[in-house]
Amino acid sequence: MVIKELYEDAKNIKDKDPACSNIFYAILLYPGFHILIFHRIAHFLYNHKLKFLARFISQFGRLCTGIEIHPGAQIGRRLFIDHGAGIVIGETAKIGDDCTIYHSVTLGGTGKDKVKRHPTLANNVMVGCGAKILGPIHIGNNVKIGAMSVVLKDVEDNVTVVGIPSKVVKK
Amino acid sequence: MVIKELYEDAKNIKDKDPACSNIFYAILLYPGFHILIFHRIAHFLYNHKLKFLARFISQFGRLCTGIEIHPGAQIGRRLFIDHGAGIVIGETAKIGDDCTIYHSVTLGGTGKDKVKRHPTLANNVMVGCGAKILGPIHIGNNVKIGAMSVVLKDVEDNVTVVGIPSKVVKK
Amino acid sequence: MVIKELYEDAKNIKDKDPACSNIFYAILLYPGFHILIFHRIAHFLYNHKLKFLARFISQFGRLCTGIEIHPGAQIGRRLFIDHGAGIVIGETAKIGDDCTIYHSVTLGGTGKDKVKRHPTLANNVMVGCGAKILGPIHIGNNVKIGAMSVVLKDVEDNVTVVGIPSKVVKK
Repeated sequence: MVIKELYEDAKNIKDKDPACSNIFYAILLYPGFHILIFHRIAHFLYNHKLKFLARFISQFGRLCTGIEIHPGAQIGRRLFIDHGAGIVIGETAKIGDDCTIYHSVTLGGTGKDKVKRHPTLANNVMVGCGAKILGPIHIGNNVKIGAMSVVLKDVEDNVTVVGIPSKVVKK
Repeated sequence: MVIKELYEDAKNIKDKDPACSNIFYAILLYPGFHILIFHRIAHFLYNHKLKFLARFISQFGRLCTGIEIHPGAQIGRRLFIDHGAGIVIGETAKIGDDCTIYHSVTLGGTGKDKVKRHPTLANNVMVGCGAKILGPIHIGNNVKIGAMSVVLKDVEDNVTVVGIPSKVVKK
Repeated sequence: MVIKELYEDAKNIKDKDPACSNIFYAILLYPGFHILIFHRIAHFLYNHKLKFLARFISQFGRLCTGIEIHPGAQIGRRLFIDHGAGIVIGETAKIGDDCTIYHSVTLGGTGKDKVKRHPTLANNVMVGCGAKILGPIHIGNNVKIGAMSVVLKDVEDNVTVVGIPSKVVKK
């Protein structure tokens, strides 16, 4: 099951990245794929109350890939993390299927919330490099978030947002 | 003395981060704590004219944590560096007590200054993720700097600034 | 030839960085120098159709330095990469001579182009920290790009641009 999901993740990278000529490139060379291996293990341990070990694996994954995903984060299928350096994904973040996240993106908190502190991305969301999505907000299906945007409020389905703070530029 | 300060640093992380359940998490899992160990050693060597060794330790710390603090930087007590990847703190930067700095923050120079080239943060300053503070400017007590801001001028006490370039939004 | 170029690269760092007291600092302590060694090897292999090995060396360089340069990128002489963490330079990017690039800069794509997907920088371009230059655009000679700018269109010679999206502020 996990192997099938990871195969799907790797195939997805090959399909989406013009610089990735075959699936072995994705498996061997993409930190955005390696961190998914670390995360699936860490998330399993986290759900089985082995929280310290889960965090340890997550931090070791950060050392190897430059990508930090808290073991508690819930990640859907076929997530494509491109380049990935500097990404931070918080404990209560949730990512749907078929999303694409570029390097230096944050799915973080604002410090004001207690239980759900981090954002939820629905399906097929694209987050451009450097964008910061902060707080327990909801980003709709098929949303595109421009590079370097700061998103602090819910975003409806099928729109493109850009800016600091972000505004809708295309429906 | 140094041990006491480091203990205080670790305890401070536990107190401030809702994802950090106890002090051993802070000591073992937080790159933002590890870099303070590297920095205290590097800063000591720097002050004793062992500048090459100091830089070497600082760069080794960068390799381990993704956080780059020049050995010359003066850092106060209970600095909380959260996540930390991509942080750059320059040689003549100065940070007061009880500050919080998120990942991808720069305390850098503009290339126009010769002696004091980097900013000074007073006490209890919060710098949001991705913010860049550039030049030998002074950031007042209890200031909050929004995520992704670019700060190029002095900021008075007790205000919140955001934007590129940053403007005061709350007193 | 390569040795001469690398010597020139190191000397250039010493000349430009006030925190770099001599050429051995540049050679031993600057990730922005180390990645040029990795890149020259990777680029040579890439041009000789050893693309997998080229990518492997590039990714190993990323692990050591935090800087990701695709082996296909064409880089001129005396490039000064300062700090460097989080830099991403795409496969079809081209950089002229005497450029300076700070940490967290992206020379990336927009997903809309097929062959030439990444930007070209002419000579003596300075790109401030966090700036993202996206698409197969041309940045003229002696251009300065402000920290955190997002550049999506061609920029003529001898100007300074800042902002998201970037605008000319000085001729």
